[in-house]
Amino acid sequence: MAATPKLTKETCNGALAAIRDTLYVLSGKWKILLIVSLREGPMRFNELQRGLVDITPKVLSKELREMEMNEFVVRKVFNTVPVTVTYELTPYAATVFPIIDSLREWGVQHRERIIEHIKQDNKEAVEQ
Amino acid sequence: MAATPKLTKETCNGALAAIRDTLYVLSGKWKILLIVSLREGPMRFNELQRGLVDITPKVLSKELREMEMNEFVVRKVFNTVPVTVTYELTPYAATVFPIIDSLREWGVQHRERIIEHIKQDNKEAVEQ
Repeated sequence: MAATPKLTKETCNGALAAIRDTLYVLSGKWKILLIVSLREGPMRFNELQRGLVDITPKVLSKELREMEMNEFVVRKVFNTVPVTVTYELTPYAATVFPIIDSLREWGVQHRERIIEHIKQDNKEAVEQ
Repeated sequence: MAATPKLTKETCNGALAAIRDTLYVLSGKWKILLIVSLREGPMRFNELQRGLVDITPKVLSKELREMEMNEFVVRKVFNTVPVTVTYELTPYAATVFPIIDSLREWGVQHRERIIEHIKQDNKEAVEQ
């Protein structure tokens, strides 16, 4: 860990507080995954639910309400027959994209690392 | 949202899978906060607990065990009287630092934004 600059107690406490704030706003796994889904463009409730597969309508509607309150999502009602309701990201939601990008990049390398480990283990098993 | 490039269905699904992987490994709020704490250097169990204030010993020990399994943390036992046990980040834990940095930066700007909102509301209340 020699290459990593050491944090002082104060910067560490400040960092902890800021990170707690972020984790509080983005709590649970759904909000981040919903932002990723909505990055494609506005979506209807059912489309969002289908995209995330294992989310229940109850949880989805709770998450969307919280995201509206946090100004991440705007709910738009169109006067069609029947009425169409879409959910759309706000410009503020875009400020979370760097976090999402870093989560995605890490996930990709982590999966590659695990596959590499499995290959290595198989190779060693064959050689023995 | 015009400035954001639209994701295709395939890149979105790939991104969702990678992000789910990351959120799975870093599940809960504690692992990230523990990595931030240990960025200062190796620490003993009690030091870690004191730093995070509201974590119980039971949860802390469970989290540390999971982090050992995921190769984020190494537990070192020193032959002192009484025995000293420290927890230390591995080089692999450093790969999570970009995520942590983006969480911290976002938390800082989010807090500033809320303070700005409150100031604005107060100003409007005075002007009325």
